[in-house]
This record gives sequence, structure tokens and C-alpha cells, in this order.
Amino acid sequence: MKKSLVGYVLGWVLVVIGAMLALPMIVAFVYGENDYLYFGIIAVCCLLSGLIITRFKPKNPQMYPREGFIACALTWILMSVVGCLPFYVSGQIPHFADALFESISGFTTTGATILGTDRQIEDLSKSMLFWRSFTNWAGGMGILVFLLAVITPLSGQSNMHLMKAESPGPVVSKLIPKLRGTAGLLYIIYAVMTAIEFFMLLFGGMNWFEAVTLSFSTAGTGGFSVRNEGLMAYEGHYYWQAVVTAFMFLFAVNFSAYYLIIAKKFKQVFKIEEIRGYYIMYFAAVIAIVINLWVEGGNDWSLFEICHHTAFQVATYASSTGFASCDFDLWPEFSKAVLLVVAFVGACAGSTGGGLKVSRVIILTKTAIREFGKSIHPNSVKTVKMDGKVVKDETIRSVSVYFSLFIFIFIISVLSVSVDGMDFETNFTAVLATLNNMGPGLRLVGPTKNFFEYSDFSKYVLMFDMLAGRLELLPILFLFDPSCWKSK
Amino acid sequence: MKKSLVGYVLGWVLVVIGAMLALPMIVAFVYGENDYLYFGIIAVCCLLSGLIITRFKPKNPQMYPREGFIACALTWILMSVVGCLPFYVSGQIPHFADALFESISGFTTTGATILGTDRQIEDLSKSMLFWRSFTNWAGGMGILVFLLAVITPLSGQSNMHLMKAESPGPVVSKLIPKLRGTAGLLYIIYAVMTAIEFFMLLFGGMNWFEAVTLSFSTAGTGGFSVRNEGLMAYEGHYYWQAVVTAFMFLFAVNFSAYYLIIAKKFKQVFKIEEIRGYYIMYFAAVIAIVINLWVEGGNDWSLFEICHHTAFQVATYASSTGFASCDFDLWPEFSKAVLLVVAFVGACAGSTGGGLKVSRVIILTKTAIREFGKSIHPNSVKTVKMDGKVVKDETIRSVSVYFSLFIFIFIISVLSVSVDGMDFETNFTAVLATLNNMGPGLRLVGPTKNFFEYSDFSKYVLMFDMLAGRLELLPILFLFDPSCWKSK
Repeated sequence: MKKSLVGYVLGWVLVVIGAMLALPMIVAFVYGENDYLYFGIIAVCCLLSGLIITRFKPKNPQMYPREGFIACALTWILMSVVGCLPFYVSGQIPHFADALFESISGFTTTGATILGTDRQIEDLSKSMLFWRSFTNWAGGMGILVFLLAVITPLSGQSNMHLMKAESPGPVVSKLIPKLRGTAGLLYIIYAVMTAIEFFMLLFGGMNWFEAVTLSFSTAGTGGFSVRNEGLMAYEGHYYWQAVVTAFMFLFAVNFSAYYLIIAKKFKQVFKIEEIRGYYIMYFAAVIAIVINLWVEGGNDWSLFEICHHTAFQVATYASSTGFASCDFDLWPEFSKAVLLVVAFVGACAGSTGGGLKVSRVIILTKTAIREFGKSIHPNSVKTVKMDGKVVKDETIRSVSVYFSLFIFIFIISVLSVSVDGMDFETNFTAVLATLNNMGPGLRLVGPTKNFFEYSDFSKYVLMFDMLAGRLELLPILFLFDPSCWKSK
Repeated sequence: MKKSLVGYVLGWVLVVIGAMLALPMIVAFVYGENDYLYFGIIAVCCLLSGLIITRFKPKNPQMYPREGFIACALTWILMSVVGCLPFYVSGQIPHFADALFESISGFTTTGATILGTDRQIEDLSKSMLFWRSFTNWAGGMGILVFLLAVITPLSGQSNMHLMKAESPGPVVSKLIPKLRGTAGLLYIIYAVMTAIEFFMLLFGGMNWFEAVTLSFSTAGTGGFSVRNEGLMAYEGHYYWQAVVTAFMFLFAVNFSAYYLIIAKKFKQVFKIEEIRGYYIMYFAAVIAIVINLWVEGGNDWSLFEICHHTAFQVATYASSTGFASCDFDLWPEFSKAVLLVVAFVGACAGSTGGGLKVSRVIILTKTAIREFGKSIHPNSVKTVKMDGKVVKDETIRSVSVYFSLFIFIFIISVLSVSVDGMDFETNFTAVLATLNNMGPGLRLVGPTKNFFEYSDFSKYVLMFDMLAGRLELLPILFLFDPSCWKSK
């Protein structure tokens, strides 16, 4: 591995983080909080060290996939550690593992929290809450993508390796020929949509602080809230919750759809199989749960309320956001099972959402059907197609392997956290919620609970899951491959 | 599909079932039970109809894979329906879905029961209990394999398709050049080992009825017991439980190992990677649970008792037998999680055990490692090897697809049975226990409970899972493919 090259990228990452930390510092000034000091000192340290490192531009800036993966994994670890410092240094989250958990949960857009038991979310200062929600936003589209949008630190192919390592989905497509343009365009769409949500919430009477933080965490499909009760604090505010529902749904759609809309290719949007699959999954789940809640009764909701909360809850699980408009842990078992399945599949590739991704499920299904046919007609030659194009054998293989690895990591994680002695449903959904970057699970990690009770060991396991889930396994797994660390 | 050909095979199956039913009839005579009538009438009906059907030998007995799959699936459904008739007609299990559940659970060697709530196991007559345990034995090695051992109804390649459809594992190897010889040899090994267990139990002072039924269900890794308390009824009888532990372990080993032992190729046995993997999994799980039980305490067992029960319980889950020497549902969460992982992996291919199979897990792991390497060096050409031989790409693909299908069926099943409103752990382990042909799960389907409380709908879902698990998905899934039903 070319260490100087990876170091160079990390240098630029430090610069970006330093710049990002200026935002909560401003918020601290506005609210007259002393926390600006912590943000300021950390920002200056990041900027200085970053600028020094980036002065040493490597002589041979040619990057190979392995450097891309390693640089990406280290970027996210660095970012998470720096991101937790404000919480930790200010003493607002005094235990390091907790602060790191909160930071990783933020950047990976998981939204799982350790706040709510020992300390309440409202105990944090405004600037810390702002920073916490901002990590959701920054992690959603990715920090390397941001870096590639603003500067292209390396040459063409090298940048692509970085982008591939960070972007979710089985294949990464350039929207426009130039990578920098693609990254920039993605961020512009992202920012504009976030702004629209912000204004819609503001228009609905929400105060600016809550509107901006809520928009950040919806956009990143993160799920952090500035209220201890989360979105349940807005009970009865149907407009606000409906806006959030709509945007959770929209941010989980493959962003190439928005590019097509900008390019006025409206018809093509609905031809994208992944988006159709996502729509079908969403509405099928909503219908199933509405019927289940309506038949089983057990709550005093009107049909409107049932539809409202179901639409919200399915959107939050499909997009892996993790908000809760009500305590769905009390819903009937079937409804909860539907939610878990939706969470397992997750969002579209190329969106800010997590999970296995709709496109992977489609490829797996089509491959299964093809193999099914092959077992009757062994000599038949059939290809798997998606959006009219043949899916490469290489992609099919990597999707299958991704799926196996995903399940293996899932099983090992459940095994590891079960050492703490919590019940199976808690452990299972805790791993599902972190590996899919969703947020809350069920039972002891349900929507009204949090992850505080887990031991430090389990918290680190879940942190690993959050990072592995956000970066789609490979970059994080490469860290454990000694051959990657050899100098060339 | 050549319907006459499939019908011809089913005719022979009816003859075999008819002959099998003579055994419980004899037991009924010995114990002076009137049930001999039911067994006798059903046996005569089977034999007669079978002999009539087999007179119409198809003119073109060339079988293709699809006929093999369909014939196999229909064989198992036919066998299950006929097998449930004694319970149902005699009124000892008066509800049809329950009787069918018990029969399918028996033949698929699952060992899940609906007895114990409304009716106790001990309420059944001796001959019915004998039949119930015998289904475990017959299903273990497979009825088509038996048919192929005794007569070879069709010509060479056609018989192979039948054998492939019924035998577990990613590849089916002929031990000796002639298929009939292979099938016969397998049954001889099977019968001899069963007899050894029987004599060891008899020698230990067990009465002959319990010894023979217990040997049947151990050999098939089925898990039916003639006692309501199952193996917990033998509390303190360490010798009996230890014998069962040893044989559960042995019957879950790939039977080619025994062939090698007969052929005096001892060294080669330990070179089989699957068997090594199975050993490692078994002992790793035992050590993990012993430490966990020892550290957590919570029971008044001595270290010997902890080791004894752990060895038993891991053997029962690894072999998918499903006996219980104690109520392990009360064990710490970590121990239970280890058991679930062991159950998920299951036994060796080519054994009577269920589960995903050790060899599949090995192939999946090696494929993942290869793909991992490919993502760094995209142009590298590496092959996956097992036992020194290159694993065909075709096998790798089918294993990956098997895994995806397995997980999909798993998810859909959990979703379906959750309609009944049982808790997640119950539903999850009920599906795991049936799809892996294991038997008891945890909580409401735990070792001291049973499947009676599920609705008929859920019972049929679980019956589907048992059949799908035993036949390794494809034959059962083919039943739902309309193109398979077209006449040629």
C-alpha cells in the first residue's frame, strides 16, 4: 500500500472536517454557548495538521483499488474520532465509547443513540445538537464525495476508486462524464432538496433550529432528533410528520432519478427497475400493515391516523432513517415483521439510505430465477438483465458474495452482543438497525429506548457494524487484511 | 413433464410405503393393540394401488432433471399424506393438519411435534409411537434412495436424477461405480449403525421398545421421542444420554467417511475438509458454551454436568436432531445464540442431518475470500478448491443461489407465521427449527413446549419449510413452476 498517498487523502479529509466544525461554532456563537471554544480548538487543530499534510503531495499519485478502500475506511474512522471529540471534550458525553458511538452513528446515518437513559438528548447544548444532526447530513452523501466535488486531489482513475469505495450500491455510475461534475451535481441535488424540506417545515410553523436539524437528519436518512422523544414529540403535528415522511421516501430513491428529472427525461425515471421495485415494496408494506392494524385494532386510531403512522413508519424503515412517529414496538407481530423485512431490504443504491439495497435484492432474485431454469435445462444460456442491460457476471458474483458476507457479519454480531445477556429480539434488531444504518430496533433498543445499556464491548461491535454497513463491508474488512498494509 | 414416468415412480413408492406399514402392524400385534387394523388396511391399499400402477411401465423411461425433482417432491408429499393416515384414521391425532404436521415432521427428520398440549405423546398407542419414530428413520436416508437400493426402477441416468433430487448437499458423489450399489451400501451402513446404537442402549438397561424407537430417531437425526418429556425423561441416566450424543454426532457426519473406513482408507477420512470443519464447529461451540455456563453460573451443575449437557445440546443442534437433555431455553443468551448459529450451519452433506450444511458454508467462505482478493487484483484468476479439487463454477453459483433462496424463504416464513401474533423469537426459531429439520426452537416452541398453538395456516407454512429444508428447496419450489407441469 502506498502509505503517503493514503496519508495525503486523509490530510484533505482533515481540512474538510476542520471547515465543517466552523458551522456548530457559529451556532454556539448565536446561542451564546461556550462550546464555540471546543469546536474552535478542534477545528484549528484539524485545519493546521491537514494543511501541513497536504503540502506533501505524493510523487506517484496513481491509486489502486486497495488504496481506495483503505483510504475510505481510514477516512471514516478519522472522521468519527474527530467528530466525537466535541461531545467528549466538553464533557457532555463523558464516556469515550459513548461519544464515539454517537459520532459513528451520526456519520454513518444510523441514528442509534446512547442518550436518553443516563443523559437526555435535551441536556446537550444547541451547538452540540446541531453538530450531531450535521454529522447525519455530512455522512449521508459522503465526505469523500464532497472532497471530490470541491477539489480533485488525485488524477482521474484514482478519484474513481475513492468514489467507488464510499458510494453505496453494486455499481457506481457516473452521471456526467467528469467525476468531479458528478460528485458536485449529487451534492447540489442533495443540498437543494434539504433546503426545500427546511423551508416546508419552517412554513409549517417549526422553529428554525428544529427545522434545520430535522432537515439534516432526514436528508442523510440518519434519524437523529433534537428531542428526547424524537418525532413522537410532534404528536398531532400531521403536517410536519407528513413532510418528513415524504422526504425520507425521496432521499432513499436512487439519485440518478433526480438527475434524469433535471435532464427532463421523465419517462426514463419510471423505467429504472430499482425505483419501481422500491415503490412496490413501499406500497405493499404500507397496505399490509394498514390492514393488519385495522383488523387487529388494539389502538384507538382512526383510519387516517393508521395510514399516517404506517406511511411514516414504513418510510423510516425503508429509507433506514429510524425516526418514530409512535411506539411501533407495540404494534402486532405481523406489522413488526413487515417492518423488519423492509429494513432488511433497505433503500435504493445511489441514495443516502442504508440496507441491502433494492437493486441487490432484484439482482439476487433474478439470478435465483436464472439458476432455477438452469437446473432444468443445464445447457441453457440465459443472462440476467436490469434496465434492459445485461448484468455482468462479475457484478452478480460480487452481489452474491456481498449477501453471504452480510449474513455472516450479521450472525457473528448477534453472537457477540448476546454476551451481554439481552434477549434475542433486542440483539437481533440492534444488529439489524446498526448494520443497515437504521437506528432503533425493537424491545430494549426500541423507539422509546436506546443503546446505552449495552456494554462497551457490544458498543464497539455495533460501531463496527455501522461502519461496515455504511461503507458496504469491503473497505472495513480490508483493514483486517495484513497484505493490504504492506508497503510497496 | 412425462406424467406417466412420474406416476410409475410414485407407484413404486406406494409399494415401499405399504411394506413399511407392516412393521407397526407387527408391533400392534405384539402389544395386542387394535391399531393393526388401521395399519393393515392402509398398507393393503398402498400395496394394491402401487402394484397396479407399476404394471404400466412407461415406454420411454428416459428421465430428465425436471422429472427427477417433481417425482421426488411428489414422493415426499404422497409419503407424508399416507404416513399421517394411521394417526388421523385411528383418531389418536383427530385434527388432519396436526396429523399431517406430525407425519411431515417425522419423514423430514425434523422432530417438531404438536403433541404435548391437547394430547400427550404417551397418549398414543405403542404401535403409533413406533410408526412415528420409524418415519424419522425412513426419512433420514430417504425413501427414493431405499427404492434405488432395492430395485432400480429406471435406467442409469434417470435413477441418478432421482438420487440427486433427494440427497442432501451441493454435490452427490457415487461411492461405488454402480448407483444401486451406492444406495445399498449407504443403507447397510445406516442400518448397522442404528443396530449398534440399539444394542448399546439395550446393554445399558433400556427396554427394547424405547431403545429401538430412540435408535430410529437418532439415526435419522429426527428427534421424535416416545416420552412427553423427551430425553429429559432420562435425567441422571448419563450413559443413555451419552450414547445418544455420540450417535447424533456420528449420523451427522458425511457417510462417505464410513465408506472410507470400510475401505480401510483411514487417513483420507480426516483429509475431508467438510468433516474437519464439522469437528471444529462442534468443539468450538462446546467450549464456548461450557465457558459461558461455567462463568454465568445460574444452575447448580457440576463441571461434568455442564460438559455433558453441552456436548449433548450442541450435538443435537449440529445434527439437527432436536432432542433436549435439559431445558436449554433457560441458558444464558450467548449460549442460546451459539446453538442457533450451530443449527443454522447444520450437519455435513451426505449425512442424515439438516441445515445449510457444513460444505456449503465452506464453499461460501472460500468464495468470499476469493472475491475479496479479486476486488484488489481484478485480473487475478483464482479457483476455489475443496479437498484438493477445484470446485466447479456451476457448483459455486448454485451454492450462492441456494443460500439466497434459503434466506428468502426464511424471511417470508417468519413473516407468514407472525400473523398468529407470537413473539419474534418464537417465530424466528420455529422457522429455523423447521427449515433446518431440527425440531424444537426457543420460547413458545422451546424444548418443553410444542407447535400446537400455531394456527393451521402457520402449520402449513412450517410443513412447507420442513419439506423444503429436507429436499433442499429445489424439488419443492419446482412444484410452483407451471412450466414443469406441461406434458411433453
